[in-house]
Amino acid sequence: MAFTFQINQDVVWNHDEKLLAKAESNTPDLIQTTVTPTAIAEIVPDGKSVNGFKSVVSEKNIGQLPEYTLGRDEKIVLDLGDHYVGKFTIDIDSVGSPMDAPLYLRLKFAEVPAEIVAESADYDGWLSRSWIQEEFVHLDVLPATLAMPRRYSCRYIELSVIDTSPKWKASFSNPTFTAESSVSMEQLPQPVIEDKELEAIYNISVKTLQDCMQTVFEDGPKRDRRLWIGDLRLQALANYATFDDLALTKRCMYLFGGMTTDEGKIPANVFTEPNLTPDDTFLFDYSLFFSTILFDYVQHTQDQAVLQDLYPAAKKGIDLALQQVDEAGRLVLTEDWPVFIDWSNDFDKATAGQAVMIYAIKRFIQLAEKMQDQQLAQYQEACQKLESFAKTALYDAAKKQFVIEDSGEVNVASQVWMVLAEVMDTKTNQEIMETTIKEQFPITGFGTPYMYHHVVEALFVAGLPEAAVQLMKDYWGKMISMGADTFWEAFKPEDLDFSPYGSPIISSYCHAWSCTPAYLIKKYIK
Amino acid sequence: MAFTFQINQDVVWNHDEKLLAKAESNTPDLIQTTVTPTAIAEIVPDGKSVNGFKSVVSEKNIGQLPEYTLGRDEKIVLDLGDHYVGKFTIDIDSVGSPMDAPLYLRLKFAEVPAEIVAESADYDGWLSRSWIQEEFVHLDVLPATLAMPRRYSCRYIELSVIDTSPKWKASFSNPTFTAESSVSMEQLPQPVIEDKELEAIYNISVKTLQDCMQTVFEDGPKRDRRLWIGDLRLQALANYATFDDLALTKRCMYLFGGMTTDEGKIPANVFTEPNLTPDDTFLFDYSLFFSTILFDYVQHTQDQAVLQDLYPAAKKGIDLALQQVDEAGRLVLTEDWPVFIDWSNDFDKATAGQAVMIYAIKRFIQLAEKMQDQQLAQYQEACQKLESFAKTALYDAAKKQFVIEDSGEVNVASQVWMVLAEVMDTKTNQEIMETTIKEQFPITGFGTPYMYHHVVEALFVAGLPEAAVQLMKDYWGKMISMGADTFWEAFKPEDLDFSPYGSPIISSYCHAWSCTPAYLIKKYIK
Repeated sequence: MAFTFQINQDVVWNHDEKLLAKAESNTPDLIQTTVTPTAIAEIVPDGKSVNGFKSVVSEKNIGQLPEYTLGRDEKIVLDLGDHYVGKFTIDIDSVGSPMDAPLYLRLKFAEVPAEIVAESADYDGWLSRSWIQEEFVHLDVLPATLAMPRRYSCRYIELSVIDTSPKWKASFSNPTFTAESSVSMEQLPQPVIEDKELEAIYNISVKTLQDCMQTVFEDGPKRDRRLWIGDLRLQALANYATFDDLALTKRCMYLFGGMTTDEGKIPANVFTEPNLTPDDTFLFDYSLFFSTILFDYVQHTQDQAVLQDLYPAAKKGIDLALQQVDEAGRLVLTEDWPVFIDWSNDFDKATAGQAVMIYAIKRFIQLAEKMQDQQLAQYQEACQKLESFAKTALYDAAKKQFVIEDSGEVNVASQVWMVLAEVMDTKTNQEIMETTIKEQFPITGFGTPYMYHHVVEALFVAGLPEAAVQLMKDYWGKMISMGADTFWEAFKPEDLDFSPYGSPIISSYCHAWSCTPAYLIKKYIK
Repeated sequence: MAFTFQINQDVVWNHDEKLLAKAESNTPDLIQTTVTPTAIAEIVPDGKSVNGFKSVVSEKNIGQLPEYTLGRDEKIVLDLGDHYVGKFTIDIDSVGSPMDAPLYLRLKFAEVPAEIVAESADYDGWLSRSWIQEEFVHLDVLPATLAMPRRYSCRYIELSVIDTSPKWKASFSNPTFTAESSVSMEQLPQPVIEDKELEAIYNISVKTLQDCMQTVFEDGPKRDRRLWIGDLRLQALANYATFDDLALTKRCMYLFGGMTTDEGKIPANVFTEPNLTPDDTFLFDYSLFFSTILFDYVQHTQDQAVLQDLYPAAKKGIDLALQQVDEAGRLVLTEDWPVFIDWSNDFDKATAGQAVMIYAIKRFIQLAEKMQDQQLAQYQEACQKLESFAKTALYDAAKKQFVIEDSGEVNVASQVWMVLAEVMDTKTNQEIMETTIKEQFPITGFGTPYMYHHVVEALFVAGLPEAAVQLMKDYWGKMISMGADTFWEAFKPEDLDFSPYGSPIISSYCHAWSCTPAYLIKKYIK
C-alpha cells in the first residue's frame, strides 16, 4: 500500500537481534523460471479495458523478431503472455553500415497496456516518479547482451529506439525474462472449482500472491516492493490456503517482532535493504494485526516456538493500543496513530477502528490463554468493555446498523468490521449485513480490494455466502473482464477510470491485498 | 569529423592481418589520472560566451557537497576545473526517513556550460541523439557507489534528481573523475612562449590533443570518438611537436594500411570496436592523406620498417587517385568520391582538390625515391602534368589568384591549397596570399578549424608569418575569449552562434583538427 506520508524521525527503535537473526535465517532462495515472449503486441485503445487500452497480437511474428530492425523513433512491444516479476536480458546487434554512433534505447516495463501509452513526463503526482518502470540505456558497442540489472514487474516490454544513426539499425534477439518468486506454481495443488468464473478468480489470485512472494511478502512487486503488515496479514492467509510457504511467513513475522519502538509500537512496514529498518509510519489497525497474524500462524501450524518468541511483542502492542481506550470502553484515536481501514477518507472510521480493536484483542486473548498469561483476565475484561461499548453506544437496533457515536453516520466499514469482530450474535450479524446490502449496495466510495475483501468475508461470516460470491464476481471478476492478469492495488467498479495517482504508470496492478479470493474460496466455498 | 552520410555496403575489403597485428601491438595502455571537482558551478546566461552561457563559481562550497541534499527536481553542477575524458563515480546516500522509493537520477556531462542548459528533447538534428552525454539511473538501495560504466568528455557534471520521495533526499559525496589518455602532461616539455596569447593558444591546443589521444587518435572524445584520416594527419603533426607518442601514430597508420578496398581505396575512417572495421565512407582528399601521413612519419622518424610495410598501400592509393586525372592533367572528381576540404559546400572545391592531389603526390614521390620504385618517373611525370595544368588552366596571373576552371570562381580554399602544394614559386605564393588577405579577409564561410589551419599554414609557407599569427589569434584566441578549455570542432568568427547541428549538446568542443596551433607555433615561430 501507499499511504499519506508520515515523518516521525524522533522515534527510538529497539532491534531484537535474536528475533531478527531468525528472520534472516528464513530468507528464501528465490525460484527462477525462464520466460520468453509469446508475441509481439500492438497496444490499441479500448474503452472496456483497464485505463482505456488493450493489447492485441501483432501481425509481426515474435519468431522473426531480429528481422524487425529499429531505427530512430521506432519501437516494438514484447508480450510475455502473463504477468511476471524478474529480470530482463536481450541480445542486440547493429545491421547496415558499421555502427558510427551509440545505440540509445528506452525500455518500458508495463503491467498493463495503458502504461506503454502513458507519457512519463506527464506524471506529476505525489508518489515518486522513480517508480515508473522505464530505463534509458546507451550501448557504445554492438553486438552486446543487454542484461538489465534491476527487477521489474510486468507483462509487456517496450523496446523504443531513441536513436541509432542514418547508417544502421538495431536488431533484437533472444529476449529472456527470468521470473522470480519464493514459490513455484508447480508446488501448488490444483483445486477443482466448478464455477468457471470463480476458478478464474482463484487462479489470478494465486498468480498475484506468487508474484508478491519474494524475499518478503511484498505489497506490490512494482511498487512499493516492501513488507506492510496489513498486506502481510492477507497474504499469509492466502498462502496457508495455497503455497503454504511457512518460512517466508515466519521471516516476515520475526521482522516485525524484532523491530518495534521503545514503547512497543509496531511499525506499519519495514525495509530489508540495505539493512533491516522499520519505517517511521504507524497505523493503529496495522499495529494490532501483528497479534492477529501471530494468531493465524499458530492456529495453522501449532508452532509453540514461534508463539514463545513473538508473544512478548504482540502483548506490548496490545497493551499500548489499550492505552487508547477510555474508561467507558471507547477507542479514542489520535492523529499521529490513525486507522487505515481503506484509502478513502470520506467516511468516519471510528466505529470500524473500535471493531478492529475487538477483532484483534479476541485473537490475542486466545494466544494469552496458550501462554497462560497472568494478566489474561485483564485482557478479557478490556475486551468485554470494548464490546459492551460497541453494543450500547454504537449500535442502532432500530436501523440494525452500527453508527458513529456523535454523528450517527452509518457506513459500510463499521458494519463489516463489527461483523468480522463478531460483536453481535450470528443472527444479528446476518441482519446487519442484509440491511447493509439493501441500503448500501452496490457499494461506492471504497478504492481498494483490501476493503472489498473485508466486505466479502463479513458476508460469509454473516451466513450470506451467495451475496459474498456475487460481490467477489462483481469486483474481482470485473477486473478480469477488463484484462487483469493479476489483481490490482486499486479499483472502483463505479468509477472505472479511477487511479489513485492520476496515471497508470505509477499504479500497481499486482498488489498483495487483492490476492484474498484464493483464501476466501478455499475457506468458505470448497 | 562528421560528414554527410555515405552508405556503400557493397564494397569488398581486404584485411591485411600482418599490418593489423602491428596496429594492435601498438595499442597503448591508457594513463589514468584522478580528478576531483574544484567547485560547484552556477550556469548563467552570457552573450560573450560559447552558445550564450558561462559558468561562475557558486556560493555553495564543493567541500560541503554532502550537505546540499537534493529532492525532486533539484540539481547541482560540479565543475572539474578543466576539460577531461574519462569515467565518473560518486557516492550517494539517502538522508531523512528510510528510503521508500528508488532514487531516479539524471546525469549530464557537458564540455561547455550551454550543454547543461540545452534540453535534449529539443534536439532534432541529423546526427544521432545517442551522442548526447546524458544518462538516467535508478538506484534501488542507498548508500551506493554509482560507477558510471561509459566514458565521457566533459568539464561540467550535472546531478539532477528526478525524484526521491517526500520522506528523504539524496546526498552526494566523493565525486571522482578518472581521466584517461595515452599520454600525460608530465611527459611534455614546457616550451617558453613569450607572447602570452600564443602561449594560451599553445596550451589549449596541447590539452585538446591530449584528450583526443586514446586507443586511437580520436576526432572528438565526445563525438565521434573515432579515427578519421584527415584528423589523424593533423594530430600526428601536433603530436611530433609535443608528446611524440610514436606508437599511437604507428598504430593508426597500420589500421588504415591494413584495411583498404580490393581496388586499394583507403577509407575515410575506421572503427576499432568490437572488431577492426573500416567505414564505408570515402573522401578523395582523405584517401590521399595516407601518403602524406606516411611521409611525415618517415620524415620525423626515419623508420624504414614502417615505410616498407605501408608503402604498398600508399602506392595503391596514389595509383587509384591518378585514375581520376585526365590526359590534360586535370583532376576529375566524381560524386561517389568527393573531396572534403571544409564542411561548407558554398564554394567550388575542384581547384583545391587538384592542389591536394599535387600536395600528396609530391610527398609520395619522396617516398618512392626512398623505395627506389621502378615507376618513380611515371609519378614525377604525373605530378608535372597536374602542376602544369594548374598553372596554365587554373591560375589567373592578372588577378594573382587561382580560379575554378569553368566558372572563374575565386575562393580562399583554392589559393590556400595551391600555396601549400607549392605549385608556384615563393614570391608568387606570397603575392597570392597577399591578394587573398586583401580581397577575402576577414574570411567568411568556413566552419572548421580544419580549414583555418590550412589558411594559417599557407600564410607561413608564403612568408607572411605576421598575418599567420594574427589569424591564429583571431580564430583560436577568440575561442579562448569565449571560454574554450579545449578547441572546438566548429567555429565561425563571423557567426558566433553557428552550430552545425542546431544544438550545443551534439557539438564536439574538444576536436582533434583544432589542435594544430601546437604544431604551427613549434614549426614556424619558435
